[in-house]
Amino acid sequence: MSETTTPATAAALDDRAAALDAADPLAALRERFVLDDTVYLDGNSLGALPKNVAGRLAEVVEDEWGRLRIRSWDESGWWTAPERVGERIAPLVGAAPGQIVVGDSTSVNVFKAVVAATRLAGPGRDEVLVDAATFPTDGYVAASAARLTGHTVRPVAAGEMAAAAGARTAALLVNHVDYRTGELADLPGITAAAHAAGAVAVWDLCHSAGALPVGLDEHGVDLAVGCTYKYLNGGPGAPAFLYLARRIQDRFDSPLPGWNSHTDPFAMRPGYEAAPGAVRGRVGTPEILSLLALEAALEVWEGVDVAQVRAKSLALTDFFLECVAALVPDGRLEPVTPAEHARRGSQVSLRCADAGAVMAALIERGVVGDFRRPDVLRFGFTPLYTGFADVLRAARVLADTVR
Amino acid sequence: MSETTTPATAAALDDRAAALDAADPLAALRERFVLDDTVYLDGNSLGALPKNVAGRLAEVVEDEWGRLRIRSWDESGWWTAPERVGERIAPLVGAAPGQIVVGDSTSVNVFKAVVAATRLAGPGRDEVLVDAATFPTDGYVAASAARLTGHTVRPVAAGEMAAAAGARTAALLVNHVDYRTGELADLPGITAAAHAAGAVAVWDLCHSAGALPVGLDEHGVDLAVGCTYKYLNGGPGAPAFLYLARRIQDRFDSPLPGWNSHTDPFAMRPGYEAAPGAVRGRVGTPEILSLLALEAALEVWEGVDVAQVRAKSLALTDFFLECVAALVPDGRLEPVTPAEHARRGSQVSLRCADAGAVMAALIERGVVGDFRRPDVLRFGFTPLYTGFADVLRAARVLADTVR
Repeated sequence: MSETTTPATAAALDDRAAALDAADPLAALRERFVLDDTVYLDGNSLGALPKNVAGRLAEVVEDEWGRLRIRSWDESGWWTAPERVGERIAPLVGAAPGQIVVGDSTSVNVFKAVVAATRLAGPGRDEVLVDAATFPTDGYVAASAARLTGHTVRPVAAGEMAAAAGARTAALLVNHVDYRTGELADLPGITAAAHAAGAVAVWDLCHSAGALPVGLDEHGVDLAVGCTYKYLNGGPGAPAFLYLARRIQDRFDSPLPGWNSHTDPFAMRPGYEAAPGAVRGRVGTPEILSLLALEAALEVWEGVDVAQVRAKSLALTDFFLECVAALVPDGRLEPVTPAEHARRGSQVSLRCADAGAVMAALIERGVVGDFRRPDVLRFGFTPLYTGFADVLRAARVLADTVR
Repeated sequence: MSETTTPATAAALDDRAAALDAADPLAALRERFVLDDTVYLDGNSLGALPKNVAGRLAEVVEDEWGRLRIRSWDESGWWTAPERVGERIAPLVGAAPGQIVVGDSTSVNVFKAVVAATRLAGPGRDEVLVDAATFPTDGYVAASAARLTGHTVRPVAAGEMAAAAGARTAALLVNHVDYRTGELADLPGITAAAHAAGAVAVWDLCHSAGALPVGLDEHGVDLAVGCTYKYLNGGPGAPAFLYLARRIQDRFDSPLPGWNSHTDPFAMRPGYEAAPGAVRGRVGTPEILSLLALEAALEVWEGVDVAQVRAKSLALTDFFLECVAALVPDGRLEPVTPAEHARRGSQVSLRCADAGAVMAALIERGVVGDFRRPDVLRFGFTPLYTGFADVLRAARVLADTVR
């Protein structure tokens, strides 16, 4: 990193940003979002608002709830929305139809998936491996699932997970992209290692869905859970999704067998009989307003190729790292996100002294990322609405702030 | 019930309805809702839309999500909304502040409450009593909770629950109002019997919250769960609420310990440490759009006395039964809802041949109730927006349909 930037360097970076923006095949997608002059690099926490959501939600409230009321469960398709919205997510994570259902929080879905994974693995296995650097809720919920099913939890670094899975392992719970460092885990390798050990891997896709091709079917994943309010822009607290691979659906034994996953819910029979298909992942009545806002938000993906999203994501994070290296005084920031593409998600995390104060100053100056204790600045790059000029501006404000 | 109605009887019923409407202290509340010329008697399934919701939700979407984005978790009070909305519900169910939290579906909350109840009861007790006529999801979820905690489920009629609780009983799960018959269970008596047996009663308030005074604190209830989209008019699939009595909060040991109930969520520590207070009932990120629509919907309760709501509810159901008796040909309908006020919720259920076809015909003619297999017509009376002239019209259409 250089102590000072020459005018020539500055102009060269401007030229580079302009050229990258001009060549960006996804540039026009930005028009599908409500944005302002903020450089919003926190889409890995809450995605920006797609323009079509407000109108659609007003229609849901005024027409479907206000006018049709109870009839909307049938006539407006509310009842089947969890599966229908799942089908919109499926191609974004490499899943054929019929395997994704939307509803409940990520935490609740992690619980379903981990308990079900231990049941799929069968008896005689006493441990659940949990990503040692996991987003905390996964760890808390996995510990509860293990307590209830008679397993113990063993924390293992994602990079050592494949080697750690063995004859005692019932389930593995792994974050596809580490929320703090932005490191991308080896989903194909860990999934294969889990299978080789007779165990079931559960993938948390919160920081990868919508940011990169996941390839759930291609890599033989059994169970996955993901968030829809980050790179999928579904709105604050939008319901999570649950992927149940077709081949395990008949054996998916949910710890939360609510009436919405009954094979004949309106028979209201006293005994539970699980529905076939991904519906089996449902529990209770879905929060329709949040769910249908998500459905509208997913329309921004029409015609979008996730491979192009990934290419742009890597170009954005590469360019940000390049700008930071060129502009930020030496020693002030240390990248913690891997430089290697194959190990990088769609965010850049930088270790920084006084990171909390630095992020507050950045936000004050119109560059919004976030801060993760104790010392990490986190910048998420949503390829659908982030441009290369945004990246350069963010790096300049950052350099100026930490100087 | 009479075969024919004289003109004198018809005029007398009109006069009675007019007098009852004129004397109704809650009549003006109807103006707070979006209604049309339908007689909507399905508020026990989905409450009507309060007029203020659409505007508030547009503001949440466009301003809080669209403009402030991630800052709204703090600046717009999203993070604390589950407790804040809980405080709005608290007075409606007889709870002092600090004991109710909103989020997740009823089914998920039943799971939390039943598992937690077995843990509160302690070891050495091997059964969970479940209301034999329960809304099915409660039974399915209780069976799952029992399976995970090493208990067995024993179905017991609500009326026999108090006598059935004994030394083997860890927990009881009871519907306060039976969803099918409209029968009101003896909450004080069953709660006291549970305590006397050393067990913990979990109350499902789905069909009583917002319809009658529940008296959670007064009757020493430990755990309760309720729905917000029926008599609380919170919108389709609006999040449920969970009541944790203050005295048991420190011992509430959730099977779903998500990061939202951690004592310091943003420390993101690997070990779970439960927050004090009702917050302990939270799990993952709340579905904010549905939650804040509910918050707005609850504003219709400002200045409303639940005792008056109960008085009107009983007057409405009494009048409906009276009109049905006067207008419907003998033998066509059999009330299954108890005549005794102390045993009646806010609905009237009538057994009827061809009930499915009859309800379809009623809906076609602008009287909306619902049908529960195999033979029950269900009419819910929401005192906030249902008038006595509505009741008479519904009874007339019903009489005409079944004649």
